[in-house]
Order: sequence, then C-alpha cells, then structure tokens
Amino acid sequence: MTSRDRFLAACACQPLDRPPLWIMRQAGRYLPEYRALKEKHSFLEMVRTPELAAEVTLQPLRRFAFDAAIIFSDILVVPEALGQGYHFREQGGIAMDYRLETPDQLARLSPDGVPQKLSYVADTLRLVRTALAGQSALLGFGGSPWTLATYMLEGGSADDFERSKFVFYSDRAYFDALLEKITAALIAYFQMQIAAGADAIQIFDSWGGIVAGPDYEAASLRWIRRILAALPKDFPVILYAKGAASHLTDQAFCGARVLGVDWTIDLAVARRLVPDNVALQGNLDPVLLTTTPEVVRREATRLLDSLRGSRGHICNLGHGILPSARLDCVATLVDTVINWK
Amino acid sequence: MTSRDRFLAACACQPLDRPPLWIMRQAGRYLPEYRALKEKHSFLEMVRTPELAAEVTLQPLRRFAFDAAIIFSDILVVPEALGQGYHFREQGGIAMDYRLETPDQLARLSPDGVPQKLSYVADTLRLVRTALAGQSALLGFGGSPWTLATYMLEGGSADDFERSKFVFYSDRAYFDALLEKITAALIAYFQMQIAAGADAIQIFDSWGGIVAGPDYEAASLRWIRRILAALPKDFPVILYAKGAASHLTDQAFCGARVLGVDWTIDLAVARRLVPDNVALQGNLDPVLLTTTPEVVRREATRLLDSLRGSRGHICNLGHGILPSARLDCVATLVDTVINWK
Repeated sequence: MTSRDRFLAACACQPLDRPPLWIMRQAGRYLPEYRALKEKHSFLEMVRTPELAAEVTLQPLRRFAFDAAIIFSDILVVPEALGQGYHFREQGGIAMDYRLETPDQLARLSPDGVPQKLSYVADTLRLVRTALAGQSALLGFGGSPWTLATYMLEGGSADDFERSKFVFYSDRAYFDALLEKITAALIAYFQMQIAAGADAIQIFDSWGGIVAGPDYEAASLRWIRRILAALPKDFPVILYAKGAASHLTDQAFCGARVLGVDWTIDLAVARRLVPDNVALQGNLDPVLLTTTPEVVRREATRLLDSLRGSRGHICNLGHGILPSARLDCVATLVDTVINWK
Repeated sequence: MTSRDRFLAACACQPLDRPPLWIMRQAGRYLPEYRALKEKHSFLEMVRTPELAAEVTLQPLRRFAFDAAIIFSDILVVPEALGQGYHFREQGGIAMDYRLETPDQLARLSPDGVPQKLSYVADTLRLVRTALAGQSALLGFGGSPWTLATYMLEGGSADDFERSKFVFYSDRAYFDALLEKITAALIAYFQMQIAAGADAIQIFDSWGGIVAGPDYEAASLRWIRRILAALPKDFPVILYAKGAASHLTDQAFCGARVLGVDWTIDLAVARRLVPDNVALQGNLDPVLLTTTPEVVRREATRLLDSLRGSRGHICNLGHGILPSARLDCVATLVDTVINWK
C-alpha cells in the first residue's frame, strides 16, 4: 500500500496496521538543507517561487519516510491576496502593512481574483504532485477565517488580541463583513488547491483557542463550517486548532473528516469523545523531539498503544516541530511508527 | 451578609442571591494608585515590606466593592526561600539566579525554614486581616509545584519549556526529588498563611496547561493533591490552571473545593462536568475589561445568567486583569454583579 493510500484510508477511518505519519512544519528550520536554502532566499521568496517552494516541500520526504508532504507556504498569503500585505518584523513576529480599522479599508478588501493572485501555490502543488508520483499524500492548507482576521485586525502578531476581540464584541457587523470576505477568499483558494492536486487540506485554526468558550462558534467555527460546506463532499479536511480542548465535541460535528489535536489532550480520551467516523491527527508534544531518541521511542509507542484497536489516526505532533528538534529524534519517531506492532 | 460570608458560602456551594466577586491580579498596574506607589518602590521591595504589600493589597478594595482581597505577593518567593533567588529581566520576564541542573544544586535546596524566611508574608496577612475586620475574605496564594519547577529548571521564563520537559521525561528521579522539596515548602508556606488568617488559598497552576495530556497527573496534579491532603480538612483551596480544559474532570476530584477556570471554557458546560460540591471560579475574558462598559455589562450578565440556579460560583476573570483594563469597565463589572437579579 502506498503512503498516499495509507493516508487517505486513515482519513476515512478504515482499518490500518499502523497510522500514517507526517509532522506539522516538517519543511522547516530543523532541517540543515532548509537552513542552507534560507541563506540564499528569503522566506517569502521561497513561498512565492514554485520551484523553491516545491524543493522545500520535498526536502523532509527525502530524509524521512513521512507519508505526506504539506505544501510549503504561509497562511498570510490570503490576507495579502485580499489586499492587506505583510512582512516579517526584524525582532520577530508578523507586521501587516496596515491595521484594518475603517469601513473604507474593509470595503477595499476583495476576494475576487484571489486564486489568480495565488496561482503560484497551484503551480507549487502541481510540481510536488508530479514529483510524488502518487506515492505520498499531498496536503494543501490555509488559516481559518478567525485566525486570519486576528492578524488583519491587530495589524500583525498580538499578545492578548485586544483589538480583534474589541471588534468582535462591539462591532459585530464589521466583524462579520470581514469574516465573510476572508471565508469567500478561502473557499476559492481551497478549491484551487484541490483542482491543482491536493489530496487533503488542513485548516489551521491556530488562534481558535484564545476565544471565550461560548463565543468559539460565532468567532470561528461557523466560518469553518461554511468553508467545509462549499468543498466537495467527503473531501478530506483536517481541522487543527491549538488550545481548543473544550471545543472538541463541537468541532466533531462541523463537517471536517479529521480533527488535529494538540498535545495537551489525551488522544485516547479524545477518541472516546469524538464519533467513530471522524479521524484524529496528533498529538505528541513537539518538545519530545528535542529530548533523546530513547524518550521519543517510549512516548511514541505509548501514544500508539493507547489507540490500539481504534481506527482513524494520523500520527503527528500536537503542534509544529521546533527549530531545536534533533534529527535523530525525528528518525526515531519515523522508525517507531513504521515498525510499531 | 458580609462579603467574607458570601465568599465562604460560595466556596461551600451554598445558595446565594449573587456570586461573590474578585479579580485575579486586582492589586496591580491597571490602578493609578498602584502605579504611583510603583514609582517609588520596586515590585520586590513592595512584596517584601509588609506595610507596602498590605497597602497594595487593600488599594483595589478602596475603589471597588470586591468581596475578597488577595495578598500582594509573588509565586517565586518560594523558590527564593528554597535557595534559588530571582530578579526581573530588563526586557521583561523572570531570570532565576541560576538554572537548576546538577544533583549538588538540587541537594542544596532546603524546604527547612521556608516559613521563617517568608514571615513577611504572614505579617502582611495579619495587617490586611486587621484592616478588613472580617468584612471581606482574605486570600493567600502560591504557585503549584510544577509551575514553580518550570522556573527553577528553565532558569526563568521560558517559551517551550524544553528543559523542564527534558528532565521530566529523561530523569524522573531528579524531577520527583525536586517536586518533593517544592511540595514540602509549599505545605509549610500555606500552613503559615492559614495560621496568619487567610480564609482561602489559591494555587496557581499557571503552566499546568502546557503538559502533555496523559502526563498532567505525574507532572502536576499528584503534587497538588499531596498539598491538599496536608492542609486542614475542608479548608477552601482554589485550584486555578490556565489552558487545562482537558484536565477539568481530573481536577474535580483532587480535593480542591473550588476550581478556577480560564475563559476558553464555557462555564455552564464546566458546571455540568464538575460535581455539585465543587465550586467554580471565573471566567470572563480579561480582554473584556479593555473594551467598553456596555460590552462588559452584556457579557457579565450573560455569564451570570448562564449559571442561574446553580450553586458554587465565584465571579472572576478567567486570567489576571490586563494593565490596559479600563477603570470604568471594572466599575461596570462590579455594578453588574452586585445588581444582578
């Protein structure tokens, strides 16, 4: 069975001898070959150049027997295509070109032409798809509407998300109009990714976990649900949210076929809370890959054993791999999953 | 009924016309009178000087009709009393005087004499108790063993807690020996606070939420349980953890009479998950107090209404008040809770 078949079978909750494995942010700074390329090209140059983005996407699969490749890109290309550009701050973090405040600024954001502006992502997907030759699964991705809205409303990275929440609580009409536009852009963007050959899409609701419990539906989940309803029926979408343990059962009925779960949840407990036809992805603590191969082998085995006999598991970390991850720890994780009995 | 009676009745899950109210970090930077005092004295000078600490503790109660005062102090006075001092970094965050690494360093930490070294906290409690004259509840507090251990093992504030987790996963004997010492120190410290007149103790498991789900018990909860077993039976202890939604039902049986819940959990849902004899504290989003009085009134009413008919609620934020909180928003919160029907 190919890695691609294994991945799609896990999404469909079919029985498997062992789960497929990939790692969030697997194309990234922990890899020497990534850092070497990054010496010569900026992050955004790599994102926007299909040959470079395809090369970075494929790097981890040359080194490790991952079952899926995830396109090298960035969630903020969608706000940029809507008309709000961004760059990286020298001191770290994101700065949008401006902070979204006025009705005029909102009116100027346009979801029309988003796929055309992001055609380089489709080109990257096609290049990677050809290289994978059907052996490994190919994932596209994007941010959730709420997560993207926070960057747009804050004007970049934020600590407490005061402005996003201010707009949500005090000007719901403005908030909803913004989320409508982001959602429309994401639907067109994901449809383009699917047409270009993505086998699955991961939606990163990275900031879903900072919303007040009773407001997760209005701030985030209803917009995700709308996206899912617009995509082909049964197309595998992975909904990943960090710090969203209390929303797991709501997410389970939103239409996503896979829920990505962070490491703070006991995945065996989550398995009992979520219906059998929804797969789970995760959820080792990313810090484990900075420890030792012995610890990784023990903890990965513990995770796999805890799910023995259940269906629909995609093995992954509970969040992106850290730049300080050790290559021997990653190799041990792959070996442990592949040889798990 | 006095505020103190109201607070203790809520801890005991007795019926009340409205919940008691206090705010985490209510003695702090959002208050002009606090900032004025901070111009003249450093944070640690205020913590260590009973007259100043008592003054800061009482400041919020002069301005707002809170039902409880919480002693002005810092969780890191316990590591300091164990032998590992600390200071504030100029760029923000905490720096311990060294990073705990060797067996020798661990051996030198001593829980003996911790209450004597922290007698200024008892002095502060007595001063505040006299000033409150039984009208308002008086809270002591401390960090959880795990939370304090992270500062000691990391050598200060941390992003990913790589070293704390490395020790936890690869040298459990060292980890357990450290947590034994911290736990012993905290038991003596809390007993001193109770003897000095604290009506309740809040344990801040501030970093409980960053542990992998299946490891919360071994890393944090078992040590908290040991503390609770050593304190007088039925003494009100509030266990507060941030980002620990998935541990709520485990916490509910640890022996704490009150669970402090962050804002990401729907408190009405938590109420159904937690036994009737365990009270809940929280859980408005701290950002609400940076918005407008209208939003605060609406959202506070929504929280109170969602718990109508249930017992055992202490109204609070879901995390500490932000320095950017508006005084008129705080006043509106107090007014809303007091006049809620």
